[in-house]
Amino acid sequence: MVIDLSAHARTPGTGLGAVRTRREVVATPTDPLALRCGRSLDHVEVAYQTYGELSPAGDNAVVVLHALTADAHAAGEAEGDGGPGWWDSVIGPGRPIDTDRWFVVCANLLGSCLGTTGPASTDPATGRPWGIDFPPITIGDQVAVLRRLGGALGITRYHALVGPSLGGMHAIEWFLAAPEEVEATILIATTSELTTENRAFSAAGRQAILDDPGFEGGRYLETGGAGPERGLAAARRFAHITYVSSEALERKLGDPAPAGAPPRSAAEWLAPGRAVETYLEHQGQSFLRRFDALSYLFLTRPMDDFAPFGPANAEAACRAVARNPTARHLVLSFDSDWRFGTSHAVRLAARLRAAGARAVEHQELAAPWGHDSFLLETPGMGELIARALAD
Amino acid sequence: MVIDLSAHARTPGTGLGAVRTRREVVATPTDPLALRCGRSLDHVEVAYQTYGELSPAGDNAVVVLHALTADAHAAGEAEGDGGPGWWDSVIGPGRPIDTDRWFVVCANLLGSCLGTTGPASTDPATGRPWGIDFPPITIGDQVAVLRRLGGALGITRYHALVGPSLGGMHAIEWFLAAPEEVEATILIATTSELTTENRAFSAAGRQAILDDPGFEGGRYLETGGAGPERGLAAARRFAHITYVSSEALERKLGDPAPAGAPPRSAAEWLAPGRAVETYLEHQGQSFLRRFDALSYLFLTRPMDDFAPFGPANAEAACRAVARNPTARHLVLSFDSDWRFGTSHAVRLAARLRAAGARAVEHQELAAPWGHDSFLLETPGMGELIARALAD
Repeated sequence: MVIDLSAHARTPGTGLGAVRTRREVVATPTDPLALRCGRSLDHVEVAYQTYGELSPAGDNAVVVLHALTADAHAAGEAEGDGGPGWWDSVIGPGRPIDTDRWFVVCANLLGSCLGTTGPASTDPATGRPWGIDFPPITIGDQVAVLRRLGGALGITRYHALVGPSLGGMHAIEWFLAAPEEVEATILIATTSELTTENRAFSAAGRQAILDDPGFEGGRYLETGGAGPERGLAAARRFAHITYVSSEALERKLGDPAPAGAPPRSAAEWLAPGRAVETYLEHQGQSFLRRFDALSYLFLTRPMDDFAPFGPANAEAACRAVARNPTARHLVLSFDSDWRFGTSHAVRLAARLRAAGARAVEHQELAAPWGHDSFLLETPGMGELIARALAD
Repeated sequence: MVIDLSAHARTPGTGLGAVRTRREVVATPTDPLALRCGRSLDHVEVAYQTYGELSPAGDNAVVVLHALTADAHAAGEAEGDGGPGWWDSVIGPGRPIDTDRWFVVCANLLGSCLGTTGPASTDPATGRPWGIDFPPITIGDQVAVLRRLGGALGITRYHALVGPSLGGMHAIEWFLAAPEEVEATILIATTSELTTENRAFSAAGRQAILDDPGFEGGRYLETGGAGPERGLAAARRFAHITYVSSEALERKLGDPAPAGAPPRSAAEWLAPGRAVETYLEHQGQSFLRRFDALSYLFLTRPMDDFAPFGPANAEAACRAVARNPTARHLVLSFDSDWRFGTSHAVRLAARLRAAGARAVEHQELAAPWGHDSFLLETPGMGELIARALAD
């Protein structure tokens, strides 16, 4: 039995119809992207989608920033397979992020494997996949790419940056990098800095990938090997457990302990049998079909070091906020989220206020689904987003 | 940097001095052990230690039941390397489980690899390691082995069964199997049934082992292969995160996000660097030296199906409790334990009461260390254990 926890609350259909993913080149040999690590990229291509129309003044943009493993297809129906975007319930005509009013942009992140340049892309200098030779990237580098895209699209001012989970980190970073350009942030199930427990889960997942012989020192794309499939599936299974609440797992996948005797064969006994086991097996396997292990490493690692209000960055954050102290910040958390739950939101709101932001609001929503509640039609979330955009 | 969370609170030295692990054969071809799966074992050997003296009537026994990866060496100094037992702070002369008064027994579990018969043992029928051909076992089968050992030692009555974590499940099962023999149980950081989240973590760990090519279908002991070392290390790292609280990880292993730029090389950037990463790496690697992957599978799987008060077993549990309704049950939980925390304890106490037990007490202790708090000198724990034994 395979149950997709995330599918149950998707709103079918949307006024947006089919949406095409487009690509923009935002770094070239004559205009390279300088990275925080000291290296630079001569070619960066960004996959993105837009919904709605940019105003003549270029000032009605709302950027939606995706979480770890999502892509630019946030809303509407995909061309071809026709599947809805990952936030289709939130974005569209008359929806909380109203495409009749806002010019909505969602772009795939630098380092991902879903259309934007990353370790699985070709290194123009060698003609081979970058692999482990792709440069280390930071949340700030990823934001720089997104800002170049915004410029190319003619956006002059961002009405709001809306980011769930990892996307919230990008929204924070973006605001601090260019506070004058940003009127509001909506920071959902996110954090101003990972806890050591967050980092522990992340590190254990990466280690499973790095340890897999199929990783081949990060050159499996070049050799044409199968890649670290077992390690990536293991990392995904464990990570997935942290994305859903204990209550959600119980409701959806709780089955009673079997009444009878165990089978006589240990091979049979140890094979996945219960609903939760089959579900995790499916989560691991289906992830392999859509995600690259190197991108998983390159996207999780920058989160570890994200600390815009940490000791090394606090002063810069204060200076940035002082350039736009009245920007509005809505911090949303879900009560059942044990990844970036309410304690993260409380700290994030406090850090923003301490840095001088005058319009910071924190709202906790009751939601039984855990961290992934942002993907579902959690009661109250759409209303809060719509209100924050309308303010 | 390697920090051993579990080492910091051990009491050095003990009046017990060096203790020897002994072995008892509790199943033979003429007296085989019939298992719940329908198969039987013709040879079962149990590794155990005892502390203190059995009374002439054989009625002063206290059985200490170990958790998943521990062994019979609960107290005193080991012969040879001289290391203290895993619960040395709790067991000894004048300690909470007072060896001047009680005859204390701790035995390694059926299915383990630390002295008692398990999948790494030799199958007498073939002369080769059992491996995957070892029969599926249940918590009840493991208790049956322990009861045979108790009989062989001349114990007639158990003053108390004391079990932390998995050991608590054995204590519950044992009481329900032979309520007349048992005066009290002390059930610490344990559960009457796993949650689906508990099972999910466990399943993801097992899958990492089963998926490892080194598992060789469970025949790596026979072939002399290295075994599923990567899978076992990954399982251990993730499991370890669930054994400690977020607060404990923060206190012991929290280091600030690095202020500088990332290194220029991704290989360097992705390698374990922070304290928590090095710590988890060490947890995984050191586990390989002392534990067998098949035993990990054979010991975790029975927990999934443990449900003595579940629909299929509730009636039998009531009948069992009715045979000794005044037995005392102390249920202890730690407030920071998110594996078998207070919600598990509340349910366990309720189930015991619903089954007719009249003397059930639940106590929650404040302890910052999470599930592993039972291994440390958690304030109040020793006193509660001593009081429960004295009652």
